[in-house]
Amino acid sequence: MGSLNMSEHKPVDFYFDFSSPYGYFAAARIDHVLAPFDRTSIWHPILLGPALKKTGNRPMAEQPMKDDYGRYDWDRLARFMDLPWALPAKFPMSTVKTARAFYAIEENFGGQEVAKKFAITAYKVYFGEGSDINDPGIIAGLARFCEIDDVALLSAIETPAIKDRLRHEVDLSLEKGVFGSPFVILDGEKFWGSDRFWMIKRWLKSGGW
Amino acid sequence: MGSLNMSEHKPVDFYFDFSSPYGYFAAARIDHVLAPFDRTSIWHPILLGPALKKTGNRPMAEQPMKDDYGRYDWDRLARFMDLPWALPAKFPMSTVKTARAFYAIEENFGGQEVAKKFAITAYKVYFGEGSDINDPGIIAGLARFCEIDDVALLSAIETPAIKDRLRHEVDLSLEKGVFGSPFVILDGEKFWGSDRFWMIKRWLKSGGW
Repeated sequence: MGSLNMSEHKPVDFYFDFSSPYGYFAAARIDHVLAPFDRTSIWHPILLGPALKKTGNRPMAEQPMKDDYGRYDWDRLARFMDLPWALPAKFPMSTVKTARAFYAIEENFGGQEVAKKFAITAYKVYFGEGSDINDPGIIAGLARFCEIDDVALLSAIETPAIKDRLRHEVDLSLEKGVFGSPFVILDGEKFWGSDRFWMIKRWLKSGGW
Repeated sequence: MGSLNMSEHKPVDFYFDFSSPYGYFAAARIDHVLAPFDRTSIWHPILLGPALKKTGNRPMAEQPMKDDYGRYDWDRLARFMDLPWALPAKFPMSTVKTARAFYAIEENFGGQEVAKKFAITAYKVYFGEGSDINDPGIIAGLARFCEIDDVALLSAIETPAIKDRLRHEVDLSLEKGVFGSPFVILDGEKFWGSDRFWMIKRWLKSGGW
């Protein structure tokens, strides 16, 4: 009874770009952080390009000084979290097809849970093995790993409906103020960055302050 | 004997810009975080302008989307840390005189400990009360609060020696890869941001990973 009202809470929104290392680290943790509080999450892969244009930013890996720090920090975080890590040859890159595949799976091939499995696997294949997860051949392999019909999935990601879905998700994320990856919105409260899980936990524990 | 060799460690370098809200939050914590590990810190106020030019960034408060998040987040962090908070009318701004005053105090008016007291007080007067801490009149008041001769301090910050000292500190910070505020360098290991104290603690506890 301690978590009275918990079931009334809406799922937590988790935004990430498949090309974001900090998104990779956050995706590996988010649901483990939420579970003890009986909270679930809805994942929203986005493309950060439009937000970067709005804020006037470039990806960290393209900024002098910050690029060196990032490369060192991602390796350090991966060691700390015991996650595989290999900076991909293609990085940063557009992951438009990967993100579309996620939404196609969510809509037609098993829902959020299968889409999450796809996302976690895609992240590990990209940042753990350095493979190009925007490549249709790699997406097909990821589909088979998730027991999804690969041919049907590759066809789905080229449909107007799925292209529109991703555009809509990106537009909606901008409206909600999402400018980075990862980005969490919890009961209207926004948390930017993979370093904010301590605060998310405190917020859930105390109900805010 | 558990902390054998601890005394051999060099002090931890703590970089911050007086105009940085996250620097304010970090300054309130850094020495409390280090103390249990018998580690001390040397504080280096810098001006972030040259680093922002190098990385191609602007202050968070001048970036669309990020500015709104920042304003909300600073208020939230201040409540969480029980620190006074009032977004200054002049923000962000150059704090060249404040930074020079810090180094003048360090060199001629009591050393690092008095300079730290000045810095913490200046931060509280800026972000807690919204006063312009780059104003000589305010600096004089801060000096008196720290039991420093205010007239002598205001004269010191206009000397070539102190101007050179600040320029030298900014140059050195760039050479070391400091591109943000706060920024901690601990035994050669770099940590950017006030959200990285959890990692600094783990690093000190375990000796790295």
